[in-house]
Amino acid sequence: MADSLNCDLKSLSPLQLFEKVTEQGEKVRALKAGKAPKDEIDAAVRMLLSLKLSYKTTTGQDYQAGLPPKDLVLINNGTTKEEDEDLVDPWNVQTSNAKGVDYDKLIVRFGSSKIDTDLINRIERATGQKPHHFLRRGIFFSHRDMDQILDAYENKKSFYLYTGRGPSSQAMHVGHLIPFMFTKWLQEVFDVPLVIQLTDDEKYLWKDMTVEKAYEYAKENAKDIIACGFDINKTFIFSDLDYLGTSPGFYKNIVKVQKHVTFNQVKGIFGFTDSDCIGKISFPAIQAAPSFSSSFPQIFNGKENIQCLIPCAIDQDPYFRMTRDVAPRIGQPKPALLHSVFFPALQGAQTKMSASDPNSSIFLTDTPKQIKTKINKHAFSGGRDTIEEHRKYGGNCDVDVSFMYLTFFLEDDDRLEQLKQAYTSGELLTGELKKVLIETMQPLIAAHQERRKQVTDEVVKQFMTPRKLAFEF
Amino acid sequence: MADSLNCDLKSLSPLQLFEKVTEQGEKVRALKAGKAPKDEIDAAVRMLLSLKLSYKTTTGQDYQAGLPPKDLVLINNGTTKEEDEDLVDPWNVQTSNAKGVDYDKLIVRFGSSKIDTDLINRIERATGQKPHHFLRRGIFFSHRDMDQILDAYENKKSFYLYTGRGPSSQAMHVGHLIPFMFTKWLQEVFDVPLVIQLTDDEKYLWKDMTVEKAYEYAKENAKDIIACGFDINKTFIFSDLDYLGTSPGFYKNIVKVQKHVTFNQVKGIFGFTDSDCIGKISFPAIQAAPSFSSSFPQIFNGKENIQCLIPCAIDQDPYFRMTRDVAPRIGQPKPALLHSVFFPALQGAQTKMSASDPNSSIFLTDTPKQIKTKINKHAFSGGRDTIEEHRKYGGNCDVDVSFMYLTFFLEDDDRLEQLKQAYTSGELLTGELKKVLIETMQPLIAAHQERRKQVTDEVVKQFMTPRKLAFEF
Repeated sequence: MADSLNCDLKSLSPLQLFEKVTEQGEKVRALKAGKAPKDEIDAAVRMLLSLKLSYKTTTGQDYQAGLPPKDLVLINNGTTKEEDEDLVDPWNVQTSNAKGVDYDKLIVRFGSSKIDTDLINRIERATGQKPHHFLRRGIFFSHRDMDQILDAYENKKSFYLYTGRGPSSQAMHVGHLIPFMFTKWLQEVFDVPLVIQLTDDEKYLWKDMTVEKAYEYAKENAKDIIACGFDINKTFIFSDLDYLGTSPGFYKNIVKVQKHVTFNQVKGIFGFTDSDCIGKISFPAIQAAPSFSSSFPQIFNGKENIQCLIPCAIDQDPYFRMTRDVAPRIGQPKPALLHSVFFPALQGAQTKMSASDPNSSIFLTDTPKQIKTKINKHAFSGGRDTIEEHRKYGGNCDVDVSFMYLTFFLEDDDRLEQLKQAYTSGELLTGELKKVLIETMQPLIAAHQERRKQVTDEVVKQFMTPRKLAFEF
Repeated sequence: MADSLNCDLKSLSPLQLFEKVTEQGEKVRALKAGKAPKDEIDAAVRMLLSLKLSYKTTTGQDYQAGLPPKDLVLINNGTTKEEDEDLVDPWNVQTSNAKGVDYDKLIVRFGSSKIDTDLINRIERATGQKPHHFLRRGIFFSHRDMDQILDAYENKKSFYLYTGRGPSSQAMHVGHLIPFMFTKWLQEVFDVPLVIQLTDDEKYLWKDMTVEKAYEYAKENAKDIIACGFDINKTFIFSDLDYLGTSPGFYKNIVKVQKHVTFNQVKGIFGFTDSDCIGKISFPAIQAAPSFSSSFPQIFNGKENIQCLIPCAIDQDPYFRMTRDVAPRIGQPKPALLHSVFFPALQGAQTKMSASDPNSSIFLTDTPKQIKTKINKHAFSGGRDTIEEHRKYGGNCDVDVSFMYLTFFLEDDDRLEQLKQAYTSGELLTGELKKVLIETMQPLIAAHQERRKQVTDEVVKQFMTPRKLAFEF
């Protein structure tokens, strides 16, 4: 009787449909191999074609054996994105817009708050410092509970900073520095301690990489991070593979988070499937736990429930939405967040940078000559096709990657505005704008390389040793 | 078009069917609330009833809102048990047979090997000791690769022992001692080191219990374990909540196992569902990791790939089937196993013991009087209803719990055989058999309590401190 019931294939997930097609394909093969009657085979083939059509209708992709559907991004616990929306999760950033992701829409979808002029002014009043150009220029554009951080700070109640990096390779590019440059500024102006998580365990789980290699990358990346200028007395850098076995407080918080998050939830938030390894499935708890100061008994001298502020790129927000959901249920304060936009690839703002393509950005190891060649050759231009047209109609700063990079790295507001006007009016040519970028990046990278040389293995060891940090709460 | 396709509800898992019924129920409620046309509501209700019927046909249970189907036991990666088979997994042991679980069938289903006379004789030759009565009497009845352990041992290649306990309460009963009594014997006759895992994290995840309470139980249980007489120089006892934060080697092995096991696999082996927390889902890796000596760098002085032998009750086998599957893929030797039968409840062998029911067994804290009362009042008897009948037809040792307990605790083979014959012939009455058990258990428990008193917090601390154990490999 069950057989005669109709069942709506539309209600199946892309993965379930994929499995149905695969199953039917195997059935057809088995029938053929078993030399079944022709009409039986034909019926099975017709069913297979129908299922493939349903699959295509649902996913917009042709069925390919062995290639399960790429997970549609799931924003806000399970709502699938609409056709024209950008795809943003910790592993994918995709947009069809040359200007990049629509961040105002993302704020609405993620349910965060815009960093507006009022908030920036408040930060200026609280710290007595001119706001960082990442704030002034909307590079850090979204937040959660930053007002509460300031309320408390104004009442002499301090906080700690937490940020991190997944050490997927030795080579870091300038985009990787954005959260660290901003975090360094926050550490300075608020005078607060900082913990930096290197998720080498995550990289081991996600990539084809040994545990040893992942840990090696973590230590290499730590050098570039330290070269940003963090205060050794106020900064603790840790590798998960290393620190998890050094701090019972950390594991206790991980297991508490793991008790309060179901597979259904991580499926909704991160798009995990039944074929994912249990390491991936439980990993979000490991990125969540540093949001709670009790994960660092040595660092905070056993002081618990210190408020945490996390500066990060917006694609990391799903981890912390989950963390904020769990926090009150395990008696911990919710971490506050400051979200940055994505750093564009040289080829254009449609995609997030890739550390595996050396031409996709400027790397921290690039020579002055490499920097020059890359920018001249690969930086997507918003200029016109001919000099005549450019002079007549002007360039488009909204899609010009050289100009975008300058908004990140050229600190002088007046100079930047001047360049924008000159480029938009057609007065400044693409080659000239690129030259400004080259001259901005070359000394910046050279200075970073100089500072990195000073970072000995001994210094890395110091930063990575669990010890009480200098702080007053 | 997709709508018109038939879809076999029988191919859905009980949980998927449960979700379909729930969904349809919500639809009906929504239609009623929205005052939809009567025929539309009727159609939805008919569909709901059909789905409920399918659910009942598949699961054998009525659908109950909010109560997902109890997982059918999944033995050997996904084969569902047959009607008349016993249910055995780490959380459930059920049989309808008063003699207890059919262990010969279990060996076939689990794919392990029977401990036969040949193997017992080999153990005797290798150790030069009379085999433990748990071996002689089939209490440890099944194994995996014990012959390989002996091959290596005979070639002067040693191994280490690993066993454990989930500290779900302060009170341990005599059944909990079985693996420890046997492990102590193995440690003595083979002269090998031993690690004992207290899965306080597991208890925190599964029970309504705080992290602190679980850790407290772990330390309390350690006292009863130590009172079994383990060699302090060769034994390391650890709480997961504590040790995971003390040993980077342990976490590295955990994450390696977690990378090589998918949710599909743990679903098949342990019956986890999408509603389970991610802590439960990833926990099996934590019970797996102590099977690899590199989890204990301090204990084994950094020596890796030492062969591991795990004595445990057969319900723990699913964890180690998984471990043995993963081991070669992460370059580690497969652990060998020795499986024991379940210890019967006083009320009968149909169920596994429960630490939460004080009358279900003899507890390690019971007074002589409590022991006497419990046995007289609760021990299920295989005797006849009247003395006359008993004298005439005799008692049944196969279902008599007093006799079963004596097979565990009365070491004298001749005496046991004598009792069996006398009881079976009707010469010995139930009350007399119970008296023998009472007189066996009272001094045994008293002696345990005496030894436990000697176990100070300081001694517990010593056993639980990571340190190099005495061993030669």
